[in-house]
Amino acid sequence: MLGLGYIFTVVILVTTTPSVSADTKGYSLKYDIGKNLNVSIGNTLIFSHTPQSPMVFVGAGQLNFREFRGNFFINNYVEDRIGLPSFTVSEGTGNQDTIYFSYGNMVNLTMVLSSTNLHPLQVSVTISNPIFNDFWLRIVATPEEQVFGLGEQFSYLNLRHKNYPIWTREQGVGRNKSDIVTFFADKALAGGDYHTTYFPQPTFISDRKYYCHYDGTNYVEVNLQPLTFHEIYVNGDVGNFLFKTESSIKNLTQQLAKFLGLQPELPDWVYTGAILGVQGGTDVMLQRYKNAKKNGVPVSAIWIQDWAGVLKTSFGSRLFWDWKWNSTLYPDLKNKIKSLKDDGVRVLAYINPNLNTNGELFKQAAQGGYLVKNNSGQPYLTDFGEFYCGTVDLTSEAAKQWYKGVIQTNMIDLGLSGWMADFGEYLPPDGVVFQGNLTGREVHNKWPVAWAEVNRMAINERNVTGDVVFWTRSGGAGSGKYTTIMWAGDQNVDFSYGDGLPSTIPAALNLGMSGIGITHFDIGGYTTASQYKALGFALVRTEELLLRSAEAAIFTPMFRSHEGNQPKANVQFYSSEYIEKCFGRLASIFVHISNYTKNYVRDNALFGTPVQRPLFMEFPDDPTAWTITYQYMFGSDVLVAPVIESNVSTMNVYLPSGQWSYIWDSTDYTGSKFVTVNAPLGKPPAFFKKNSVWADVFSEIKTKFPLIPVPVTFSSTSKPGGNTNGVYRDSISVTLVLISLLRSIFI
Amino acid sequence: MLGLGYIFTVVILVTTTPSVSADTKGYSLKYDIGKNLNVSIGNTLIFSHTPQSPMVFVGAGQLNFREFRGNFFINNYVEDRIGLPSFTVSEGTGNQDTIYFSYGNMVNLTMVLSSTNLHPLQVSVTISNPIFNDFWLRIVATPEEQVFGLGEQFSYLNLRHKNYPIWTREQGVGRNKSDIVTFFADKALAGGDYHTTYFPQPTFISDRKYYCHYDGTNYVEVNLQPLTFHEIYVNGDVGNFLFKTESSIKNLTQQLAKFLGLQPELPDWVYTGAILGVQGGTDVMLQRYKNAKKNGVPVSAIWIQDWAGVLKTSFGSRLFWDWKWNSTLYPDLKNKIKSLKDDGVRVLAYINPNLNTNGELFKQAAQGGYLVKNNSGQPYLTDFGEFYCGTVDLTSEAAKQWYKGVIQTNMIDLGLSGWMADFGEYLPPDGVVFQGNLTGREVHNKWPVAWAEVNRMAINERNVTGDVVFWTRSGGAGSGKYTTIMWAGDQNVDFSYGDGLPSTIPAALNLGMSGIGITHFDIGGYTTASQYKALGFALVRTEELLLRSAEAAIFTPMFRSHEGNQPKANVQFYSSEYIEKCFGRLASIFVHISNYTKNYVRDNALFGTPVQRPLFMEFPDDPTAWTITYQYMFGSDVLVAPVIESNVSTMNVYLPSGQWSYIWDSTDYTGSKFVTVNAPLGKPPAFFKKNSVWADVFSEIKTKFPLIPVPVTFSSTSKPGGNTNGVYRDSISVTLVLISLLRSIFI
Repeated sequence: MLGLGYIFTVVILVTTTPSVSADTKGYSLKYDIGKNLNVSIGNTLIFSHTPQSPMVFVGAGQLNFREFRGNFFINNYVEDRIGLPSFTVSEGTGNQDTIYFSYGNMVNLTMVLSSTNLHPLQVSVTISNPIFNDFWLRIVATPEEQVFGLGEQFSYLNLRHKNYPIWTREQGVGRNKSDIVTFFADKALAGGDYHTTYFPQPTFISDRKYYCHYDGTNYVEVNLQPLTFHEIYVNGDVGNFLFKTESSIKNLTQQLAKFLGLQPELPDWVYTGAILGVQGGTDVMLQRYKNAKKNGVPVSAIWIQDWAGVLKTSFGSRLFWDWKWNSTLYPDLKNKIKSLKDDGVRVLAYINPNLNTNGELFKQAAQGGYLVKNNSGQPYLTDFGEFYCGTVDLTSEAAKQWYKGVIQTNMIDLGLSGWMADFGEYLPPDGVVFQGNLTGREVHNKWPVAWAEVNRMAINERNVTGDVVFWTRSGGAGSGKYTTIMWAGDQNVDFSYGDGLPSTIPAALNLGMSGIGITHFDIGGYTTASQYKALGFALVRTEELLLRSAEAAIFTPMFRSHEGNQPKANVQFYSSEYIEKCFGRLASIFVHISNYTKNYVRDNALFGTPVQRPLFMEFPDDPTAWTITYQYMFGSDVLVAPVIESNVSTMNVYLPSGQWSYIWDSTDYTGSKFVTVNAPLGKPPAFFKKNSVWADVFSEIKTKFPLIPVPVTFSSTSKPGGNTNGVYRDSISVTLVLISLLRSIFI
Repeated sequence: MLGLGYIFTVVILVTTTPSVSADTKGYSLKYDIGKNLNVSIGNTLIFSHTPQSPMVFVGAGQLNFREFRGNFFINNYVEDRIGLPSFTVSEGTGNQDTIYFSYGNMVNLTMVLSSTNLHPLQVSVTISNPIFNDFWLRIVATPEEQVFGLGEQFSYLNLRHKNYPIWTREQGVGRNKSDIVTFFADKALAGGDYHTTYFPQPTFISDRKYYCHYDGTNYVEVNLQPLTFHEIYVNGDVGNFLFKTESSIKNLTQQLAKFLGLQPELPDWVYTGAILGVQGGTDVMLQRYKNAKKNGVPVSAIWIQDWAGVLKTSFGSRLFWDWKWNSTLYPDLKNKIKSLKDDGVRVLAYINPNLNTNGELFKQAAQGGYLVKNNSGQPYLTDFGEFYCGTVDLTSEAAKQWYKGVIQTNMIDLGLSGWMADFGEYLPPDGVVFQGNLTGREVHNKWPVAWAEVNRMAINERNVTGDVVFWTRSGGAGSGKYTTIMWAGDQNVDFSYGDGLPSTIPAALNLGMSGIGITHFDIGGYTTASQYKALGFALVRTEELLLRSAEAAIFTPMFRSHEGNQPKANVQFYSSEYIEKCFGRLASIFVHISNYTKNYVRDNALFGTPVQRPLFMEFPDDPTAWTITYQYMFGSDVLVAPVIESNVSTMNVYLPSGQWSYIWDSTDYTGSKFVTVNAPLGKPPAFFKKNSVWADVFSEIKTKFPLIPVPVTFSSTSKPGGNTNGVYRDSISVTLVLISLLRSIFI
């Protein structure tokens, strides 16, 4: 009877939080003056205060920023930090209460608890003395509690045991401080850290089934390091914290996404093939397209980031940041866009909110007063590497309207069906913006949302929403209202967990639990550093990385390649006929399952359920599911475990409870265990639920898409840099060997 | 008249601080209740307090230590930190006043100002509420103020603009976080940082002509980063701060050394030649000595660190930490010591306060209860790399007496004339010591002083002070009372500023301004990592480093070689006849000037004037002298600028005002300018004052010590690792090239 007994113990507990009307309290406040104070939503304890262990601290100090090309060095010198032990309560009769915290006769803080239609608990904080510009709020935590979200977090899925600054910036190169790539990037002030991200957001979801959202754009730190509390730091005026409980992580995710704003569905054409990231002019573009078609690549669009022309610098070729069609590099583009569209292929371009001082748009913007200014009232010029740019002031309605018009006239009216809407993180802290003469520092975290908004305004006004797509990397709370799709920014062209292909998975999953359920990444990664070869390791894209990355992209909403910042050093989808055919086969699988994908993109657009989901979102009762970072559910029915290591041909995959079928051989598995499957190049591990209504679609893959035969000339023609076995020499593995050696140098 | 005018403007200002008797106030206290409070000594403002900018802060938090083989990872989580704005004063009638600082009705702190015979200002702090275990004191600073001392600081001479934790520990490998050696050492938890040192001391000397000494052994941080104040943090009971002004840095240094305890003079035999660091048994030792004599090396002593035997581990050969003569490895040692002594040569050995669990001494110590214990009352065992040790409890008088006896019986009575008294920094924070059942954390910073004390007790009691020498690397305030000479610990075998030969200079100069004027270093450095070769750089000693290092050692009180931790990977003084002759020539110069050296060692023993002095100590009115870190005055009459870079044959040297003669060609220079001199291998730049009474001694060097002719076979026989040009490939220069390359990888 053991088997049956086991089955019957799988009980799904569903609890519901009663919906709260605005004139009743959705929270409970219990206290004993001088002793303790507790605030809960239902059974979920949120705050616990005693004089010995206060829940609020105020402080004063200096928060300083240094910036270098989007990398920020933040120093917070806290001179005073005072826990407020004493409290009194003024209980409200309606939907709110007021707590007065104090420290003797010196510090007073007013905390208003209230319930709103959407949030059973809203916490509003005001500090009486303006000298205190620092605030810390402690939320009850258990040592084993898991926390997710905080925007697009690349390093971890469970975010506990680290402190997370919330400040949009370059993700940084490397990101793992113990990786030698980061070591060298740090020397150029370009290195990242575990928390650096284009899209931080002061919102987290706890496995205690509540979310906490700080409703402001100040500089914030979310410290998840302590064992018994989470501590949120806010610099400047404090404002509101919002809390909500739900019966499940999925419900929390959906409610959060609805509250912050839902993304629209993607245009249908996105699902018709690969978006080819190419450049070099009209002829090259058409040639790449022709070859791709010849080699069986289904093409949905051609993306030409250099549509506005290029500059020659000592660093090599750079884009000319003056956003209009460059008819020298792209002769006859307007007509080609039309004829390609007739052929079912779109053309996409590139824009960012910075304008090269040598361009026409800069002059217009400067004359119109549309640029962020410096302290002298002149346009703030930023060095982007042998050229300077002004930044469109996204706090000025006039500037936004003007830039919206630029997008409409120069891009949409040209016939473009989309673009990369790049950057949005660089707003210099000492820049002066239109809005209330604020400094960049005060609006820095709003910038990405405003940047997405301008793009969306341009599209909506032209009534092309649903046909035109733009992809952003920077973001913040509310980005979902504007952006059509995110992308994961500039991965290193490697398999590193800190900054390579693997990092796109926690990025997508945390973003999904922050209200953004539609995202994708550059196939093959971006950041290339062939110059490292002199040091014994190369950061160049191998064909293995390109193809493993394309495999993973099948199970995302958009399949788009990028040549990277050093196109010639990298393997490209067009590097050989064989690679192109492999790439085409993977793109074809993306197209094959697109109705499934589209279904879940719609799910996100309607309900806020992210397309890519952590295992525990679908299997919350499975303890092992909570420990898995690098697998995910693609929709409800497909479990994906992309190959994120080099030189492997099998994968050990965890399958939650249920009946699963492996897409590559239709072997059936009963879940609640780890299984090992074959995963040679070309066969990304994915399993579908046997009882899925989509089972036929997925079971067809293995026969419809046979592997491309490997040509005998493969290894000698396709691999750059003499790297003949396709293995990226991971610095971690090299240095692990050294650790034991190094231990020997002490007496 | 311009020339004469210039001369007459050189006015030496001499101010004197009146000596203070204990019943008058040596400081002045001025205040206006509610507004401000100032404390000065003479014209030197020490404290300045306003309610807006308080001089004292109290706090509460958790200070946590993690340890790995003497490397400590310290985390100070400050939960509360409160500036105390309000004050009242109770003026004393005698030699003291009391200030009561407070924050509203919540925090009270009592600060007693007093004058003692030695210190015009003593500051004693008591906090009323024991919950506050953190304290910060601010001392007035000017933005351009320079600060020196803090014990043995390796990275900077002027210590401003950094924070310095005071916690004795391994100096760490690398020490410059932007050096790739540190990067790899960090992976083994062995990396250092700018402040890590065996000998930190909470004492600094300001160019505002005062010193500040914190008279306690708690964990302290001295934050010299802020522009307008220095801030001293103390964890635990606060205790006393002592301040003294003097008319000059030299006087301050002398007063400080006298207060903390003066070192004795060195034995005369130290000046008779090189101390040869060799190992491998009696035969090897004697053979090394014989060859050295043959090649003209004057030998004062032979230092055999492996006198107690060795262990084989997977790391290679390690010393057997059971401190008694190993007659297997060193047969007939006792007789050889006698006959060598007859030959004018001493024998030196090695000891540290840790005992291998497999040794006899460990068993004796465990039985006697002489070891540091763990929480269970058992001997605390520390992993030193495939062997475990107990640590002699230096807080127990019985244990000290016992270990003193071990030194006397096993070392002095064997005929040894000295030893390296290694370690002293590892006391684990969670160890339990005899004294008041305190934890290691509370007595950690006392440990090095207690370790030196045991060695000195052994010597004094046997009446061999002045004949027996021991050299320590760990230290703290009061080490001068016990240690006979310090050494600079484990330099990397390179020319790096962070951790190589150059770092020994600021180390000696800061130590000199912390009360310890007699120190030296391992000729050739210690930390070797030949295993790095796989990564494109080797950390192995070249003959250039060995010889440049020996050149620098001429101008220190003791000339001692070390084979390093990987003897076979390093060039040694005995690696070839040519090198040995070169080494012998340099040792001969050390002997030649030894009466001069001895004179200044005596100066230190009597007056506390360090042997090695920063330029500004001798030339305080010369602004350029204050900017020079890597030159020093050796005594009063000789200026030394050791060659601390590889592959150079000239040096640019700053000469303060006066008439100088270059030792290698007797060219005369008028100072107050930079001069460039020839400095090929074998000719360390040094200048003597033309009017020095020692002029003859130094002018003889150029003729008495001609360079050793380079043999034709030199490059092929003497250089390890195929490094044929003797240039250490400095990682900094390699990576500097990469920085500009790396900047190219961003769009």
